[in-house]
Amino acid sequence: MRRMIGLLQVDPTVGDLNGNAKRLEGLASLATTRGASVAVTTELAISGYPPRDLLLQEEFVSLAQNKASSLRVDIPVLVGSPVVPQAKRQLPSNGVVRAGSSGSHPSGEGNSHVVARKQLLPTYDVFDEARYFQPDNRSGIARTIANLNLGVTVCEDAWQSAGLTPSAYAADPIEHLAEWGRQGVLLDATVNLSASPYHADKLSSRIHVCRTAAAILDHPFLLANQVGGNDDLLFDGNSLVAWPDGRVVIAPSWQEGVLMVDIDDASKCHWIPSDAPDALRIGDDVLRHLSPDDDGHEQDKEVLEDLTDAVVTGLSDYCRKSGIDSIVLGLSGGIDSAVAACIAAAAVGPSNVTGIAMPSRHSSQHSIDDARHTAEALGLVFDTIEIDALHGSVEASIGGMLQAGHPVASENLQARLRGLLVMAHANAQGRMAIATGNKSEIAQGYCTLYGDMAGGYSPIGDLYKMQVYGMADVFNARAEQLGNTPPINVSTRSKAPSAELAPDQKDEDSLPPYPVLDAILHCHIEEGLDAQDIADKGFEHTLVVEVLTRLERSEHKRWQMSPAPRVSNRAFGQGWRRPLASRHDWRY
Amino acid sequence: MRRMIGLLQVDPTVGDLNGNAKRLEGLASLATTRGASVAVTTELAISGYPPRDLLLQEEFVSLAQNKASSLRVDIPVLVGSPVVPQAKRQLPSNGVVRAGSSGSHPSGEGNSHVVARKQLLPTYDVFDEARYFQPDNRSGIARTIANLNLGVTVCEDAWQSAGLTPSAYAADPIEHLAEWGRQGVLLDATVNLSASPYHADKLSSRIHVCRTAAAILDHPFLLANQVGGNDDLLFDGNSLVAWPDGRVVIAPSWQEGVLMVDIDDASKCHWIPSDAPDALRIGDDVLRHLSPDDDGHEQDKEVLEDLTDAVVTGLSDYCRKSGIDSIVLGLSGGIDSAVAACIAAAAVGPSNVTGIAMPSRHSSQHSIDDARHTAEALGLVFDTIEIDALHGSVEASIGGMLQAGHPVASENLQARLRGLLVMAHANAQGRMAIATGNKSEIAQGYCTLYGDMAGGYSPIGDLYKMQVYGMADVFNARAEQLGNTPPINVSTRSKAPSAELAPDQKDEDSLPPYPVLDAILHCHIEEGLDAQDIADKGFEHTLVVEVLTRLERSEHKRWQMSPAPRVSNRAFGQGWRRPLASRHDWRY
Repeated sequence: MRRMIGLLQVDPTVGDLNGNAKRLEGLASLATTRGASVAVTTELAISGYPPRDLLLQEEFVSLAQNKASSLRVDIPVLVGSPVVPQAKRQLPSNGVVRAGSSGSHPSGEGNSHVVARKQLLPTYDVFDEARYFQPDNRSGIARTIANLNLGVTVCEDAWQSAGLTPSAYAADPIEHLAEWGRQGVLLDATVNLSASPYHADKLSSRIHVCRTAAAILDHPFLLANQVGGNDDLLFDGNSLVAWPDGRVVIAPSWQEGVLMVDIDDASKCHWIPSDAPDALRIGDDVLRHLSPDDDGHEQDKEVLEDLTDAVVTGLSDYCRKSGIDSIVLGLSGGIDSAVAACIAAAAVGPSNVTGIAMPSRHSSQHSIDDARHTAEALGLVFDTIEIDALHGSVEASIGGMLQAGHPVASENLQARLRGLLVMAHANAQGRMAIATGNKSEIAQGYCTLYGDMAGGYSPIGDLYKMQVYGMADVFNARAEQLGNTPPINVSTRSKAPSAELAPDQKDEDSLPPYPVLDAILHCHIEEGLDAQDIADKGFEHTLVVEVLTRLERSEHKRWQMSPAPRVSNRAFGQGWRRPLASRHDWRY
Repeated sequence: MRRMIGLLQVDPTVGDLNGNAKRLEGLASLATTRGASVAVTTELAISGYPPRDLLLQEEFVSLAQNKASSLRVDIPVLVGSPVVPQAKRQLPSNGVVRAGSSGSHPSGEGNSHVVARKQLLPTYDVFDEARYFQPDNRSGIARTIANLNLGVTVCEDAWQSAGLTPSAYAADPIEHLAEWGRQGVLLDATVNLSASPYHADKLSSRIHVCRTAAAILDHPFLLANQVGGNDDLLFDGNSLVAWPDGRVVIAPSWQEGVLMVDIDDASKCHWIPSDAPDALRIGDDVLRHLSPDDDGHEQDKEVLEDLTDAVVTGLSDYCRKSGIDSIVLGLSGGIDSAVAACIAAAAVGPSNVTGIAMPSRHSSQHSIDDARHTAEALGLVFDTIEIDALHGSVEASIGGMLQAGHPVASENLQARLRGLLVMAHANAQGRMAIATGNKSEIAQGYCTLYGDMAGGYSPIGDLYKMQVYGMADVFNARAEQLGNTPPINVSTRSKAPSAELAPDQKDEDSLPPYPVLDAILHCHIEEGLDAQDIADKGFEHTLVVEVLTRLERSEHKRWQMSPAPRVSNRAFGQGWRRPLASRHDWRY
C-alpha cells in the first residue's frame, strides 16, 4: 500500500474560523480523492497565523480548537490550532489536534484529540509566541494514524537542531524524537506544521532545516507551510519534504494547494492546486526536485521574480482579506509609483485601480506623460488633478508663515495636498489608497508623513530603491512576454529620482546615490553592522554616520505613531496587538 | 548605627547612557550626604526602561553594563542594568550590578560585579522581556554591602507570590529567598528594582505586592520605581517600603528624587527631591504613611488629580527627551482640544504653545470664542485661519467626485485641511503638532486619519470622553486656586459634543451618549468582557454589538499603520521595535 501524506498548503485569514475550516476541508477532500491516507495542515491553520491578541480571548481559543477537531474530513488530518490551557493560570498551547476518521470509525468530534503542543516558542523579530503560549516539554507522536506512525513537530521545533535560531533553546525536539527512535519507537516519518514567513532567499534555510532533521531522524521529514499574506507578513508556501539522503521535493510558492508526498518514492510526489474560487495562484505551479548537492539558493534573477510575486501576493491577499476590491494611488511619473501601480494592477486587476497624476508647478511635462503611459499600458483608470490652484490657495492663507519658516514646510505641503486628494478619492469611492514610498527613502525620512506616506498599504515599503528598479524590469519583461506594452517608460526608468517639490530638486541633493545608500542601509538594517563595521567595508565614515543618524531620526515617520500616555490598564499601542486584515466576526 | 537605604527614583531617558549615569550619580550623592549607607536604583536605570530593540545590539548592552558598574559614587549602589550573556548564543540578563566603594575601598571599576539577574520575565501587555532576556533561576543576594545583607529582586520577581501576574510562572523568587532565610541565610531587607508602569489605581496593587513579600520574608521590602514618561509608557514613581506588620511608606509620584528609608524606623523615612535642573517635579512632594489596614486605594477625586499629573508628565517628558520645546495644536472650542491645550501649557509652558482656531462654514461663532477664551486664559499664542476658502478651492477642483461619493469624504476633507495647516505650522516653526482625539472616539473610528489624528503625540488618546470632562474640571479648579481665569468655558463644558464637519452635526447622531459608550468600551477593553457579558450588565445587546463592531473596524486608524509586505530579513514594523523618544547617540 502506498504511503501518501497530503500537506495542506493553506492561505488562511486570521480570525476567520469558519472560512479557514472550509478551506481546509476542501484541501483535505482533494488529498483524499488523490489517495492520501493522512493530511497535515500548517501551523495554527484554523486561526490563521499570526492571530496575535485574538489569542488572549479564551473563547477564541476554545472555539478554534473545537472547529479544528470537528473538521468534516474523510481521512485523519493533523490540524494546527490553538489549544486550551492544561491547567488554571496557564497560557494556551500552540498545538496540533487530530480531526477526521480513525480507521473504520466515522468522522466526528468524538475521536479527536491533541497530538502535539509546540515546544520552542520563537520570541524575536516578528514572533511573539512567549506572549501567548505555554511551551510544552514533550515531543508529539501520532500513532497508527491510518497506516502510519508520525512524529509531530511545530515550526520552530525543528530549527534548533539546524542551529538557525538567533539564540539557543534549552531543548531540542528533533534530538528528542531521534532518542525515542534509538529507544525503539519506530516512526515512518516526522511532520512539521509551519507558518514560516518569507524573506528573500529564506527557502534555502528551510531546506537546510528539513535535511538536517531528516538526517538526524533517519526518516522523511515533511514540512507544511502557510501561504499568502497577513498584514505585513508574507508566507511563501514552498511546503517540502526531505529524505535522509538529502533529496528534497518542494511545492510551488504563492499558491494554495496540496503537496502529495509519497514517502517511499520522491518521483510520485505531486501538486494539486486548490479548487477554491478565490484561491491564491500566482506564478508557476511546478514541483521542484533537488538532488542532495543542491542547496536551493536562488540566482539573483529568481530572487527578483520571486520578490515580485511576493509583493503582489501581499497586496492581493490584504485586499481580499480586508474586503477591499479597488485601489487608488498617486502616479508621479517616477519609478516608485509606476512599480506600485504594476503591483496594484496585478493584485486586484487593472480596471480596479485608479491612478491620479497630480502635477504641481514643479512637475515637468514628461512626468505627466510618463504617468499617463504607465496607466494606459496597464489599463488603469487615469485622472489628472492640477494642484497649483490649491497650493496657491494655501499660500494665500498662510504664505507669510511658510516664507518665514523652514523651507521643508512648503515642500511637505504639496505632498500633503496630494495625500488629501488621494484620500478624498478613496473615501468618496470606497477604495483603498496605497502609499508608494520605498524602504530607502522611508529609512532616511525622505518622505512626508500624512503626504506620500498616506495610505492603507505600502506595497514597496520593504523594497530598497535599487530593488524597485529591478522589479520595474520584471514587470516590463512580463508585459513583453504577453505581447503588451511595457508599463514603465524608458524615461521613467532612466530619469534622476526627484520628489519634484522644489525647482530642479533631485534626491541626490539630499541623499547619497541610491546604490551607495542601499548598500549602507542593507549593512546596518539586515546585517546588523555598526558605523565602524560599515566604514571598514570601504564606505566613507562620515557618510555612514550621516545615513545612520538620519535612519535613527526617522523612527517616528517609519512607525507613523503618535504615542498616547498610557493611563488605563488596556491602552492601544504597544500593549494591544491586533491583526488588521482579519475577520473579527468569529464570535457572531 | 542607623541602617539607611536610599531608593533612587530616577527619570531616565531610554538610550542616554551618559545622561542617565549623571542623574544616578547626582541622586546617589544626595543619598550619601543624607546618611544612606547603600543606594538602590530602578530596573534598567542605566539604559532607561524600556530600551526595546536597542537591547539587540551587543555593543549597547556591554556599554551599559560598563557604565553602570563604573558609576562615580561614594557608597555602594545596586544599579539596574542590562548584563552581557553568560554563554554563547544566550540572551543578555536584566540584571543588577554593584557600583561604588565596598567598605574602605575607593570607588572604581575594579570591585564591581553582577549581584542579581531577573528571574521572571513579563511577556504580556506592554512587556516583551522574553524577547530580550535570558531568565535566571537563582535569587540575588548582596552580602555585606556596607553594613547590610540584602535580598535583591527585579520588578516582576516579586509579583508571583502576590498572585498578580496574568499567568503563573514556574518559580517564585520571593518564596525562594524565604526558604534561604529558613535555612539560616539572614537578610536585613530585600530590595526590588522596578520599572512598573502607571495606570489609574495601580499603586494599590504595588502596595499589596510589597506587603505580601515583606510578610513572607519577615523583613522590610523596598521597591524603587522608575518615574517619568517614555513614549507611551508612564512611570509614576511612588517608590515604597513595606514592613512585615503591614506599615508602608510611599514616595511622591511624578517627581525625581530619593526615598530615604530607615529600615528600623518608618518615622525616619524622608524624601530628597532631585537637584538636577531639568528634574521632573509635578504635584506634591509629601511622603505617605499607610497603616496596616489602609489598602491605599485612591478616591475618585484623587484618581483624577493623579491622572492629570500623569498626562502632563507624559507630554512634558516626551518633549524633553525628544528635544522638542514648543507645541502647536488646533483649538476647536470643544472640550478635547481645550483639555489638550491645558496639558500642553502645563507640560512646556503656555508661551511655548500655539493654539490655532480653524473655523469652517460649519463652525459656530461660540466655537471660535470658546477657543479664544481657552488660549487667552492659558496664555497661549493664538491664531485663527479660516478654512472656508481652502475648502472651496478643493471643491472647485474635485467637487464632482465629492458630490457623487460617500459624504464622509467631504467631512474628512475638512479635518485633513486642518491637519495640513497645523503640520505646515509645525514644520515651518520646528514645533511638534499634537493630536487632540480621546480614547472613546478613536475606539469608534470617529476621527480622521491624517486629519485630527495628525500629530507627534496624543495627550488625551488614552482618556475616555468622560475622563476628559473630569480633567477639564481639575484644570479649572487648579486655575481658580491660583487666582487665574478657568481656561475651560462653561459653554465648552456644557455644549453637546460635535465634530462640526456637517450642518448641525452632533456626536450623538453617530454614537451612543458618551456615558453609555464609555461604560461599554471600558467593559470590553479594560475588563475583557464580551458582548453577552456586557449586555448582561444591562446594556442593550444590539447597541453593544454595534459599539464592539465599530471598535474592531477601527483597528487600522488606531494603529495608524500601513502594512508593507515584509520581503527582507529586517523590515520596519512588528519586527522592529524601537523607542521613539530616546537618545540614539549612545554610540558616538
